[in-house]
Amino acid sequence: MPKHYITFRDLSKDEYYHLFERTRELKRERRAHSYFRPHLGGRAVALLFSKNSTRTRMSFECAVNELGGHAIVLNLGDSQWARGEPLSHTARVMSRYVAGVVIRHDKEAELTEVAKWSSVPVVNSLTDERHPCQVLGDLFTVTENLGGQPLEKQLFCWIGDGVNMANTWLEAAAVLGFPLNLAIPEGYGPDPDVLRDARGDNPQIKLCATPQEAAKGAFVVTTDVFASMGFEGEREKRLKDFKGFQVDSALMALAAPKAIFLHCLPAHPGEEVTEEVIESPASVVFDEAENRLHAQKALLEYLIPAL
Amino acid sequence: MPKHYITFRDLSKDEYYHLFERTRELKRERRAHSYFRPHLGGRAVALLFSKNSTRTRMSFECAVNELGGHAIVLNLGDSQWARGEPLSHTARVMSRYVAGVVIRHDKEAELTEVAKWSSVPVVNSLTDERHPCQVLGDLFTVTENLGGQPLEKQLFCWIGDGVNMANTWLEAAAVLGFPLNLAIPEGYGPDPDVLRDARGDNPQIKLCATPQEAAKGAFVVTTDVFASMGFEGEREKRLKDFKGFQVDSALMALAAPKAIFLHCLPAHPGEEVTEEVIESPASVVFDEAENRLHAQKALLEYLIPAL
Amino acid sequence: MPKHYITFRDLSKDEYYHLFERTRELKRERRAHSYFRPHLGGRAVALLFSKNSTRTRMSFECAVNELGGHAIVLNLGDSQWARGEPLSHTARVMSRYVAGVVIRHDKEAELTEVAKWSSVPVVNSLTDERHPCQVLGDLFTVTENLGGQPLEKQLFCWIGDGVNMANTWLEAAAVLGFPLNLAIPEGYGPDPDVLRDARGDNPQIKLCATPQEAAKGAFVVTTDVFASMGFEGEREKRLKDFKGFQVDSALMALAAPKAIFLHCLPAHPGEEVTEEVIESPASVVFDEAENRLHAQKALLEYLIPAL
Repeated sequence: MPKHYITFRDLSKDEYYHLFERTRELKRERRAHSYFRPHLGGRAVALLFSKNSTRTRMSFECAVNELGGHAIVLNLGDSQWARGEPLSHTARVMSRYVAGVVIRHDKEAELTEVAKWSSVPVVNSLTDERHPCQVLGDLFTVTENLGGQPLEKQLFCWIGDGVNMANTWLEAAAVLGFPLNLAIPEGYGPDPDVLRDARGDNPQIKLCATPQEAAKGAFVVTTDVFASMGFEGEREKRLKDFKGFQVDSALMALAAPKAIFLHCLPAHPGEEVTEEVIESPASVVFDEAENRLHAQKALLEYLIPAL
Repeated sequence: MPKHYITFRDLSKDEYYHLFERTRELKRERRAHSYFRPHLGGRAVALLFSKNSTRTRMSFECAVNELGGHAIVLNLGDSQWARGEPLSHTARVMSRYVAGVVIRHDKEAELTEVAKWSSVPVVNSLTDERHPCQVLGDLFTVTENLGGQPLEKQLFCWIGDGVNMANTWLEAAAVLGFPLNLAIPEGYGPDPDVLRDARGDNPQIKLCATPQEAAKGAFVVTTDVFASMGFEGEREKRLKDFKGFQVDSALMALAAPKAIFLHCLPAHPGEEVTEEVIESPASVVFDEAENRLHAQKALLEYLIPAL
Repeated sequence: MPKHYITFRDLSKDEYYHLFERTRELKRERRAHSYFRPHLGGRAVALLFSKNSTRTRMSFECAVNELGGHAIVLNLGDSQWARGEPLSHTARVMSRYVAGVVIRHDKEAELTEVAKWSSVPVVNSLTDERHPCQVLGDLFTVTENLGGQPLEKQLFCWIGDGVNMANTWLEAAAVLGFPLNLAIPEGYGPDPDVLRDARGDNPQIKLCATPQEAAKGAFVVTTDVFASMGFEGEREKRLKDFKGFQVDSALMALAAPKAIFLHCLPAHPGEEVTEEVIESPASVVFDEAENRLHAQKALLEYLIPAL
């Protein structure tokens, strides 16, 4: 049975700590320009996209390449996926050609169906419901800034839309046990099942009435654009509904003294976060973007057995 | 003069038997994870597509990579092809950059024009008229299931649309000499010139009135979707006209005892073939999909001289 | 500070002569099939396109690959670029993943913005204003045909549209000092600032009233399609306005005895140039297309430091 990575819950706390350690090593090696590993041995990994992407595309294409593999990039709109072939067929065919499949697709249920039939690992690189690879890289970024403190003692806070990123932070809190505050505008989530399950595992998850309440004393402050991909049509309404949810210097001043700011990017400076915050020393957003590469290398190395 | 592969007739019976043998070896090597060959020596092969593709794209991109080359994938709609440059120019320019050109394009005449001007091999990976790489992989799949019997003694039967796949099976029967029954709905082909020429070379080609007549005693039963790419608009009409041409267990029961079922995929289970048949032990459709990779490696290795 | 290549003026005369020499060596090596250099050491180079391309795509993808790198090809329409992320973010993120960025995009100001924030070299592979990589390859092609004569003594003539190619020839004349005649239809350029600056550096630049005046005694005759990308809508009007600007055998007869004809392609034979000229011994257009590959390898090797 291949090991898939569809939700953050697909790996255990121990496995995450192993991945953070490997990510650290892979990052060090890359910086030292000795980053080519024979792990994939020239095998191909399919990268399937049905959503726009710069970061996901570049970070996964580099990851596969730097592990000694070959990335086959397919736009799902261009493939048979669009022509009504059963996914059980697509999954079995792809399994004959490639050593792993990374999918960025709105409908997570379709990833689950592919994973069910695939004999090679399937990785979720963004769905409407979850974004585990992003949170994996984000958590590694947090570990780089802990200064020796334990990860699970740090207060995380999520400000903003309660969709895929918020759901994944909830699952991460459930698996890793850190306290998490969420400030989400009325009517914008999070998924009630995800919330209930996460709270079942971690009593330190709190829904806060205001961003101020959520950010107070937090070590990690993170947010996303007000209107994610797929919701651009609601932009006007959202700008109004998300009023007061901007991460600005006043909000950051409420956080812990050495607090860091995370954003999965792309950002719209002046909307969900001020230009000042994103360019401040507290902002580690470009390290965070870089770390997706290292973390995804560690993940693929872990999921895809060596030859 | 480069050796092109536009129609199945571009290679001889001896060359096909050589390719089957090489395919077998390449498949064995890949299974043993020692599949990287220095044959292409880092040279690039262009893969040009004007039609959707998962199988063709993945199988050729892996093939080029596993032969030690580099696939450059171009959507023909994205290239100068769309801007009215003479193909004689395009072909001569590409010949300067790459060691081979694989083209999936509706108009076969344009492939022929490119081949005329190209100084590197041109491979047809699907046109409205032919699909020789598919039939090459299919025939190799048949050889895997012969149990020591000679290929040219096996009865093949084609059920369904009389376009590119049927035309190519006719040409394959002409070159390799196996008996071939076709059951094609009235008014859906095959190409009369292709049929006449094939019959000129092989008297054992028979147009049958019904799928039952065609399948009787056949070792290979094969079909394709009722509405291939480009004909989706005729779907309603075709579902009616192709009534009775579904490959089901009753039809397979008429075939030879150890008959196999082939389908180039994508399939629409419940239309041209039942779910039961496609998931039955007689169905070798996923081996068939995998074998395109091995067969195309053997083909590219044969057409593109080593450095 | 990374070394960018946005305009032809970004490199000096000495640097160009160095690049011509390296291009010659790289071409010789490739012909001898020993063309893989470890220069890039597996690092990735991003190729970003917002315009159609065959030559640019193939020549740069081969160039990166043959230098031991890995090309990541992104359609700008597919990336965050289209979603309003500040280019200062895009540039900083890409700099974490890749060793260089090659951009083909209409708005040159956006390349300049990316270059400002990028910590890796940014290369202009075509904008509405300039096409320096093309002229670099063109000039190398000229050096192959000099027969020992000095480049800067040769008369170049440009016939036709006064946009990116004409602007770049003006900048090339400014940097390298060769005499340049331009025959451009009334109202079609060149950019007055580019012209003024080039004339400031090189008094041997002449705007001619007719193609005949411009071609007289020229060693290099070059042109481009009447309606470049982005101007296809003006085709009718342009065919009228560019009447008399076709390069035909009569015009070539006015040029120097061993004159050569260059065209960046795609060409529309029968419009800006006759079939006879483009297929004549004076035409080096396919060498010119090939030389883009070699010249771009020399350029990337120069801009991106070895590990």
